[in-house]
Amino acid sequence: MTPQLSGRRKPTLAVVGATGAVGTVVLELLSTREDVWGEIRLVASPRSAGRKLMVRGEEVEVVALSEECFDGVDVAMFDVPDELSAQWAPIAASKGAVVVDNSGAFRMDGDVPLVVPEVNAHSARVRPRGIISNPNCTTLSMIVALGALHAELGLTELIVSSYQAVSGAGQVGIETLRDQITKVAGSNLGTQPGDVRRAVGDFGPFPAPMALNVVPWAGSLQDDGWSSEELKVRNESRKILGLPDLRVSATCVRVPVITTHSLTVHARFEREVTVDRAHEILRGAPGVVLYDNPAEGEFPTPADVVGTDPTWVGRVRRSLDDPTALELFVCGDNLRKGAALNTAQIAEVVAAELGQSGPSSG
Amino acid sequence: MTPQLSGRRKPTLAVVGATGAVGTVVLELLSTREDVWGEIRLVASPRSAGRKLMVRGEEVEVVALSEECFDGVDVAMFDVPDELSAQWAPIAASKGAVVVDNSGAFRMDGDVPLVVPEVNAHSARVRPRGIISNPNCTTLSMIVALGALHAELGLTELIVSSYQAVSGAGQVGIETLRDQITKVAGSNLGTQPGDVRRAVGDFGPFPAPMALNVVPWAGSLQDDGWSSEELKVRNESRKILGLPDLRVSATCVRVPVITTHSLTVHARFEREVTVDRAHEILRGAPGVVLYDNPAEGEFPTPADVVGTDPTWVGRVRRSLDDPTALELFVCGDNLRKGAALNTAQIAEVVAAELGQSGPSSG
Repeated sequence: MTPQLSGRRKPTLAVVGATGAVGTVVLELLSTREDVWGEIRLVASPRSAGRKLMVRGEEVEVVALSEECFDGVDVAMFDVPDELSAQWAPIAASKGAVVVDNSGAFRMDGDVPLVVPEVNAHSARVRPRGIISNPNCTTLSMIVALGALHAELGLTELIVSSYQAVSGAGQVGIETLRDQITKVAGSNLGTQPGDVRRAVGDFGPFPAPMALNVVPWAGSLQDDGWSSEELKVRNESRKILGLPDLRVSATCVRVPVITTHSLTVHARFEREVTVDRAHEILRGAPGVVLYDNPAEGEFPTPADVVGTDPTWVGRVRRSLDDPTALELFVCGDNLRKGAALNTAQIAEVVAAELGQSGPSSG
Repeated sequence: MTPQLSGRRKPTLAVVGATGAVGTVVLELLSTREDVWGEIRLVASPRSAGRKLMVRGEEVEVVALSEECFDGVDVAMFDVPDELSAQWAPIAASKGAVVVDNSGAFRMDGDVPLVVPEVNAHSARVRPRGIISNPNCTTLSMIVALGALHAELGLTELIVSSYQAVSGAGQVGIETLRDQITKVAGSNLGTQPGDVRRAVGDFGPFPAPMALNVVPWAGSLQDDGWSSEELKVRNESRKILGLPDLRVSATCVRVPVITTHSLTVHARFEREVTVDRAHEILRGAPGVVLYDNPAEGEFPTPADVVGTDPTWVGRVRRSLDDPTALELFVCGDNLRKGAALNTAQIAEVVAAELGQSGPSSG
């Protein structure tokens, strides 16, 4: 049941959900990042089996999800819906694979680490169920920057508001916004109550029009008026940072942006902070780009950040009425660091660990 | 120099800047609200003099701005740029008119009240300079709801993030977004760094593309990285609420919405709060619509609020880690309550006062 690594043999990776939106970005990343993998096996639904996809410059045939497809697999990345992960991740783990799961199925399981390599890579080593979870894209879009600040300054409270892209709702989210943009282009819509609502017709996966609008809702309704997305930001931030009592309030709002989530963050710390010190920490933080010079028009926006790997931070200010608090504006590509990239990074952490712990007969 | 009201004679109103974006909405409102005015004089730049505009179903000829145009005027509404207000409002006041000014020229002047009738109508009576200021549109889009909550619960801290419409930057802001929307419609833009930036070309009054983007900047650069818009929210909220030491942090972000500003608000109070009590207060507050039932998809969005008068409030939640704090999502039409409507309401407050204090010989 333990990975059978023969010396320096490179580990075998399975990508489950290889044909999906996140899976597609995973294959791109596997083709451009340092190649730590031996075989890469592409797994999808029986419907997609037999398709050929490019990875590392070679065509690979997709195989159907089955118990057998995990034979000999060292690491299995899952980019599938919650219910599929809930069913199949334990099967893959029981066959000896370390599962890196991008669904919400295991994130708050006490026996499953929730890992952001820049923040808590060490947590990946303790995985009683053989499963490691990848956080939600909204949490991931800010947590690398906040983890760096927390390590130096000690975080005590987060109050965040999101500006979330439609691709967080999948390919259908993108198509819905593109279709609505076409319908409002060249019009005088957006000036009378409901005119956009009537013009766009189909809301797709959203509860209101997305073109020329912002919608204060993401996810499903939970207790006391909270959305599931807002609770994920709270619960996952606490778990990743190892701060089970961190005060967190989030309001999640969808905006008409294709890809890249933005967040405004009010972060309170244990002691007084300065903008200079925050700049210094962020400038030195792996995975973070500090882009903060409004005099030169320099602050991150989704249009510039999309398609890039890092977490971008700008508009750093110290709260005028609280010397222990900072205001930040943060952008991160929700399909890259927010999903595929972090999953790939976790898998690479596991690959390195397997390489160290395996017998070195090579 | 005091208004010469002969008994029940209705007061004379001058609308300075009648041909502008806000002035146009003012004329619409004057045509639909209860008619408290005698003569309505339309004033604009010499360039616009002689134009005829409809108000109260009648054509009125625009006259050029001059000292004489304030002869016999009881109330003068100014909807012009800061520098024009700074020059001409004191002249109008010296001729005996009560000036209601929508510019930023006098808002923080200690001798000029900053008035939101639902919150601090009483302040309008004390006006040593004969001038009353109308707040900034971003502050106005939330302050009616917050004033109602403050009156019952005692506000101690505000942390707000804005989702501001492009019409806050004037007609050119609207035209810029409409043009950019046309350029991105039918494309696959928004997936590669800078692709939208290159496609839209002209940013108009904004520092970055507005289509398929959000931009964390509004106004001019002030000390320590703050934008003027963010400082206005802090300073004006304190003055309107009569809380000079209120802790306020704001981050202002422009979004691709034509008209209606939205804000997420984290509001902390002197004592424990409940959602039920907040609902009760907001349901009874003049000028506020509570629209808060996510189970039925009911929360305000700009597309539904645009063109309406009230401040709409939804997504009311009590902070999970602080029983004294509420989270809210607030929408208000930045051209109506955010500008023209509040100005008209202040003018009406003054008209009522003049009607009471004048000799009742009628």
